Amino acid sequence: MKLLRYGEPGAERPGLLDAEGRIRDLGAHLGDIAGPALSDESLARLRALDPAALPLVAGTPRIGACVGQIGKVICVGLNYADHAAETGKAPPAEPVLFIKATSAVCGPNDAVEIPRGSEKTDWEVELGVVIGTKAKYVSRDEALSVVAGYCVVNDVSERAFQSERGGQWTKGKSADTFGPLGPWLVTRDEVPDPQALGLWLDVDGVRRQTGSTARMIFGVADIVSYISGFMTLHPGDVIATGTPPGVGLGQKPPVFLRPGQVMRLGIDGLGEQRQAVIQGA
Amino acid sequence: MKLLRYGEPGAERPGLLDAEGRIRDLGAHLGDIAGPALSDESLARLRALDPAALPLVAGTPRIGACVGQIGKVICVGLNYADHAAETGKAPPAEPVLFIKATSAVCGPNDAVEIPRGSEKTDWEVELGVVIGTKAKYVSRDEALSVVAGYCVVNDVSERAFQSERGGQWTKGKSADTFGPLGPWLVTRDEVPDPQALGLWLDVDGVRRQTGSTARMIFGVADIVSYISGFMTLHPGDVIATGTPPGVGLGQKPPVFLRPGQVMRLGIDGLGEQRQAVIQGA
Repeated sequence: MKLLRYGEPGAERPGLLDAEGRIRDLGAHLGDIAGPALSDESLARLRALDPAALPLVAGTPRIGACVGQIGKVICVGLNYADHAAETGKAPPAEPVLFIKATSAVCGPNDAVEIPRGSEKTDWEVELGVVIGTKAKYVSRDEALSVVAGYCVVNDVSERAFQSERGGQWTKGKSADTFGPLGPWLVTRDEVPDPQALGLWLDVDGVRRQTGSTARMIFGVADIVSYISGFMTLHPGDVIATGTPPGVGLGQKPPVFLRPGQVMRLGIDGLGEQRQAVIQGA
Repeated sequence: MKLLRYGEPGAERPGLLDAEGRIRDLGAHLGDIAGPALSDESLARLRALDPAALPLVAGTPRIGACVGQIGKVICVGLNYADHAAETGKAPPAEPVLFIKATSAVCGPNDAVEIPRGSEKTDWEVELGVVIGTKAKYVSRDEALSVVAGYCVVNDVSERAFQSERGGQWTKGKSADTFGPLGPWLVTRDEVPDPQALGLWLDVDGVRRQTGSTARMIFGVADIVSYISGFMTLHPGDVIATGTPPGVGLGQKPPVFLRPGQVMRLGIDGLGEQRQAVIQGA
């Protein structure tokens, strides 16, 4: 099942992508793709619906982030050995975690704003994991059962804010529009192996990132289990699992985003994002 | 005005502390102490109410975090020169920011759980700033006008998770119950100078932290303005402004929390918290 949210920012409605790639409205069946609606029981109810009986959405509305009311966005840093190498860091012995402000989350095709004073805004295609069931100290073996589904995330990052402004990475990860999420939340039954997904990202048609989740240092089950040992995961929390090589910082010499450019990125089976890069106000 | 939330976790109702220290129910006037209810207009409407005409709440209910539906908790690290010194760090040239998971937030008198495997759970009394008005690139001069009010925060921290487990501080700051908030949100009209507040924290009756917000390296207006340059602040966001000296890590030798201990902490005019320390399950 491919779940999505469509409509203007802050007023998104729940929808479902049908087999023909058309949006069907789910508003009669749930308030939002969020929180309790992500439980196995809720998803089973949605799966039992006949898509053809759901109202067809006219036109081509804006697509919002595929999850609403996100509690927290937890990101894993340096989770591909080849990406760690390109940033000059050793592969971590255990997952590196940081949090991206939820206010950074936006739709998959919304413009990405280069913040005022930024010269090093960078891209990061990542596999997003959406939690469906509350989890604390979940074992590695049980970890995937608390996942509602997967999505594409662009963990947009400002490298100078991240690493040259003192302290933690927060400043470089949390700017408005630095968290495009979607287009769809693909439920986990349609992703039999989250460690066998190709990822890619283009800037202005030039392939910059190519990777596979097979190259993660810590796989999804490890990550979910690990994080749940430090804090409770709640339905609607999102985990960004790290980026493969090819970020701007890793180019020789480094290249960063400029207004007018376009990013396209995708993950096998999870859809594509397209973001125009603009100068933030 | 002292606003609060009372009732069981997840089912808190909005309330107001009257001049006699009794809780009055605000449920007829707003849904929650959260988001839009924190705007200047909303607070002015509440201020116009006659407390004596509001229903008196019977008994001594649990007090919840003084803000609901928090979007993000942004924390400032090493913001008192004497605390920076006790941790062995140089005072930062600009504010150090990190994010605490919102799932860590709890009521001011809820038990604080020592996480599984923790040997270095520590305390940090801090002035909390609650945002009332959306703000981006707000100037230092205008910064306090976007603040709804202030509260006490205990930025509970696990030092090994924070600094000995790889990467960012997130792991040591985000455990469940690591964010007692309240008891009250004291509106900013009742806090004429947020840089003149005494703070203190006791463990088992022994004074551990004594400080004044006058000793902050970066004051509240600086911090609000600074953060708003990296991300939009939204109503209901909370900023923890750093802790004065006297944390467990700074004792010689360091001392950390043990099950059975009790923390008490407070800030002038903002009330007190009391937390029993228990072993987390």
